[in-house]
Amino acid sequence: MYRNHTCGELTIANVNNEVILAGWVHKVRKMGGGMTFVDLRDRYGVTQLFFSKDNNADLYEQANKLGREYVIQVQGNVQERASKNMNIPTGEIEIIASGLNILNISELPPFTIEDETDGGDDIRMKYRYLDLRRNAVRRNLELRHKIAFETRNFLNDRRFLEVETPVLIGSTPEGARDFIVPSRMNPGEFYALPQSPQLFKQLLMVSGFDRYFQIVKCFRDEDLRADRQPEFTQIDCEMSFVNQEDVLNIFEDLTRHLFKIVKGIDVPAFPRMDYAHAMKYYGSDKPDTRFEMKFVELKDLTVGKGFVVFDSAEYVGAICAKGAASYTRKQLDGLTDFVKRPQIGAKGLVYVRYEADGTLKSSVDKFYSQEDLKKWAERCQAEPGDLILILCGETEKAQKQLCELRLEVGEQLGLKDKNNFSCLWVVDFPLLEKDEELNRYFAKHHPFTSPKEEDFPLLDSDPGAVRANAYDMVINGVEVGGGSVRIHNSELQNKMFSVLGFTQEKAQEQFGFLMNAFKYGAPPHAGLAFGLDRLVSLFAGLDSIRDCIAFPKNTSGRDVMIDAPSRVDQDQLDELNLKIDIKE
Amino acid sequence: MYRNHTCGELTIANVNNEVILAGWVHKVRKMGGGMTFVDLRDRYGVTQLFFSKDNNADLYEQANKLGREYVIQVQGNVQERASKNMNIPTGEIEIIASGLNILNISELPPFTIEDETDGGDDIRMKYRYLDLRRNAVRRNLELRHKIAFETRNFLNDRRFLEVETPVLIGSTPEGARDFIVPSRMNPGEFYALPQSPQLFKQLLMVSGFDRYFQIVKCFRDEDLRADRQPEFTQIDCEMSFVNQEDVLNIFEDLTRHLFKIVKGIDVPAFPRMDYAHAMKYYGSDKPDTRFEMKFVELKDLTVGKGFVVFDSAEYVGAICAKGAASYTRKQLDGLTDFVKRPQIGAKGLVYVRYEADGTLKSSVDKFYSQEDLKKWAERCQAEPGDLILILCGETEKAQKQLCELRLEVGEQLGLKDKNNFSCLWVVDFPLLEKDEELNRYFAKHHPFTSPKEEDFPLLDSDPGAVRANAYDMVINGVEVGGGSVRIHNSELQNKMFSVLGFTQEKAQEQFGFLMNAFKYGAPPHAGLAFGLDRLVSLFAGLDSIRDCIAFPKNTSGRDVMIDAPSRVDQDQLDELNLKIDIKE
Repeated sequence: MYRNHTCGELTIANVNNEVILAGWVHKVRKMGGGMTFVDLRDRYGVTQLFFSKDNNADLYEQANKLGREYVIQVQGNVQERASKNMNIPTGEIEIIASGLNILNISELPPFTIEDETDGGDDIRMKYRYLDLRRNAVRRNLELRHKIAFETRNFLNDRRFLEVETPVLIGSTPEGARDFIVPSRMNPGEFYALPQSPQLFKQLLMVSGFDRYFQIVKCFRDEDLRADRQPEFTQIDCEMSFVNQEDVLNIFEDLTRHLFKIVKGIDVPAFPRMDYAHAMKYYGSDKPDTRFEMKFVELKDLTVGKGFVVFDSAEYVGAICAKGAASYTRKQLDGLTDFVKRPQIGAKGLVYVRYEADGTLKSSVDKFYSQEDLKKWAERCQAEPGDLILILCGETEKAQKQLCELRLEVGEQLGLKDKNNFSCLWVVDFPLLEKDEELNRYFAKHHPFTSPKEEDFPLLDSDPGAVRANAYDMVINGVEVGGGSVRIHNSELQNKMFSVLGFTQEKAQEQFGFLMNAFKYGAPPHAGLAFGLDRLVSLFAGLDSIRDCIAFPKNTSGRDVMIDAPSRVDQDQLDELNLKIDIKE
Repeated sequence: MYRNHTCGELTIANVNNEVILAGWVHKVRKMGGGMTFVDLRDRYGVTQLFFSKDNNADLYEQANKLGREYVIQVQGNVQERASKNMNIPTGEIEIIASGLNILNISELPPFTIEDETDGGDDIRMKYRYLDLRRNAVRRNLELRHKIAFETRNFLNDRRFLEVETPVLIGSTPEGARDFIVPSRMNPGEFYALPQSPQLFKQLLMVSGFDRYFQIVKCFRDEDLRADRQPEFTQIDCEMSFVNQEDVLNIFEDLTRHLFKIVKGIDVPAFPRMDYAHAMKYYGSDKPDTRFEMKFVELKDLTVGKGFVVFDSAEYVGAICAKGAASYTRKQLDGLTDFVKRPQIGAKGLVYVRYEADGTLKSSVDKFYSQEDLKKWAERCQAEPGDLILILCGETEKAQKQLCELRLEVGEQLGLKDKNNFSCLWVVDFPLLEKDEELNRYFAKHHPFTSPKEEDFPLLDSDPGAVRANAYDMVINGVEVGGGSVRIHNSELQNKMFSVLGFTQEKAQEQFGFLMNAFKYGAPPHAGLAFGLDRLVSLFAGLDSIRDCIAFPKNTSGRDVMIDAPSRVDQDQLDELNLKIDIKE
């Protein structure tokens, strides 16, 4: 060992100890008068070293020549500091250096290794190994380790077995695009990287594994957004002989356990909200329930007063922003611009200010009397000082727009506190989603999700109305996990394939091995997968999952540090029987 | 929940309890006289169900119709059995069934779900999900879970952080063949799947992570042997500010901890054996030290007696098989055939029998007197009743042949007990290996392995003699882990590249980002990786790693269950700018 203590552990209790430390030179402070302080940093903390000309002139000279990020080993005696720093655990002591060994030198880093660094995004990604030296970044990865570790403990205690499923699997054309891997030994054939271990975990249930989990890399070749990565990590789980409530309870327990042990927060029991309710009151299947501001439908109160915009709209919906009557004209214009942005696409925004004096002022005063507006306000449970914001249009679209507006106003009013965690289950999702263009149904989750028993008859008469035994865990408007009770019966599975428009042949081709497996005694089973990246970024209060990944890729799927992907030798392609064929 | 107990937990203490169980029908035994027993199986055990016509005729009829592997739910009352089976935990009780619910039917499985099954290898791989129902197979995966879990606990306790490194990385032409992954977003470019996270873990040390580990999938596109898989799992570790002994000690502790907690075995401290010693006495860098039978060199005692085979050989080496003088002519011929097999390639085998009466009989009696043979026997520490076996030839080749012979004889004499574990460290590996054909040196481990400081001067004068700070953990002749102290200094790294014949440009192209990283203060660091598959199969006493992998591939790299790899649509290849080009 190059040290007998870390830089984070020496305290007043160690005074007079002879110690050896090793780490990086964080700062050199030449005080004049023959005194130099060096802050020595490692993963565990920072310890102050003291070099004095009087003590040892040679050593003092050497210390003065140390550059930022040099790696050194120091021997010395622990002493109480004259001027203490009570903000750090080692702040009461310093090391009177008696030996110094430069283990490695360093060029000047391209940005400062500080919580608030001077490096921009691009340079920090290129030098990710230096970015990772910053406390702020390392702490995210320590948190990630802790969450994964505690998750494993929790599940192991409950007799879940972690089973590794293969990474080189077959391609399934349904769903997102697969990454594929050419097989040298099987010319012209390809493996695919898994988008999830879905089929394998269901096979493990058929195998009687009873309780399975895996913290596992998954892959999706999608065009990337800020919170997407081509490779991401799931906490993937499956259980046999359980129903939906059993699954919700155990993973709610896991989540509350993680909040408690990792963040010291007691999170209350998670409410269950059905999908229809979430859409009606929040316009989203992942409502941010840190604040209320639920949708209020006003259509019936607005018709027949000559305002053709509302009269012709299928849906008129409002939110009530408490205490926001003070919004200025400019702020209201800002909100109007916000909802008119092409990504949101509303035609306009109607507001009603409930003034402190009890009068109501709106952007549609021309059409509606004080009495009319009072009725709106009543239904919105608005009080003097509140601001009512109204959107209208085709129901689903208008609800989505109102959802965006609600989140924006919530942000402006400071209701989206990152240290406040509001968790819930959204349940009773629709089983199917119709693609109007193709005029066919797709599985909203995947084709193995079971319909609710009471909705079986609707599979023929009204497939779109069938609800699934499917559930999402939502925290602060983020879907952190989701799953379903699976179909375990071949007959129902065949029915499902036929509703989805799969021929017997196509179903056999794509899912044959699962359907075959189900012939040999599949137990009732259900499961769920958490997005570990999202869970960690939520716990860490990050805006992007990128910051909780050690070596992330950019939005072009590139790792700019190692410069991958890259070209390969033609020899290598020849062995794989491949030719590159780029169309100009 | 479909049950309130598992099939493995009810005992005499539960008598008179009303319980609900769920599981698979393992066996139906119709006893006649209106009585039927059903063995109900789940992951946790087997519980006997009792159906009687007198109790409930309907239920009795239903039970008689149950097929093997049907999935059922049963309600009933726990009663003490008349005829007990003390071999299983539930063997003192049975359930008097009062309710039966068939959750799923099953076709007749293609082989029996028993420890000793009637299914051959191929059919069991095709129906792996049924093979996994067998206790023997499931237990291997439970063991795998336990080893991984306890490894994480151990390393977490010692402040190791598990950090996920990327799976989509860049291709490195050195070493084994990479699997590559075409990038859609970067036309004509490819990711590679990692053969190990080597570079990333070293970067994490540069980042100050201090102690890293990861249980991680790695990939190698090699022609497969019985104990190789295209994807395999490593326990990958790296530490900063440590020397070789620190690394050996911590991972020896880990291994001994695993033996203790998983198998209840106290394994003694691991001896360190240097590479030269291992080659000289065992002809292998992974000696099986469960038994002695070390090589004895006889060259000097054999020359000048007119036996030209020995006279002309560079090396004459013997092993002494204790108590094997009773080997018959046929057995000796068998050993001769064994060493003459083309995989081994010896020209012949010389034996000396030390008879019980003190006389020596050899296959070279023509050339050597009793006195000569006595001298050989003395050096071999042979006693009456022992058998001396001798091979000769070019030193390295003959040692390898003698190694194979030693292992074969050890097997025949029952010295390779799977329940006896002999662990050691092999250290001081050569840094370089010469490819005589290409007349250049290759790194024996990888180009970042540090040479021993005292051997630095030899880098120029005699590179082949330089020893590395490299080490392997060997258990029962299996290399379960290996690693090295890394080069952390740019200058030495450049020197190393030049010895390996890399131009500056080529080194920069392939390892540029690591060399750049080392400019910014790389700490001294060292690490190691365990092969998890090998470790588990060793603990489980398996002959192949395949049996401790849930869904393994065959020797053509195929998963016969899901039939992967497979062809993909041309559309998919078009998106990737690829064409298949199979030369006939």
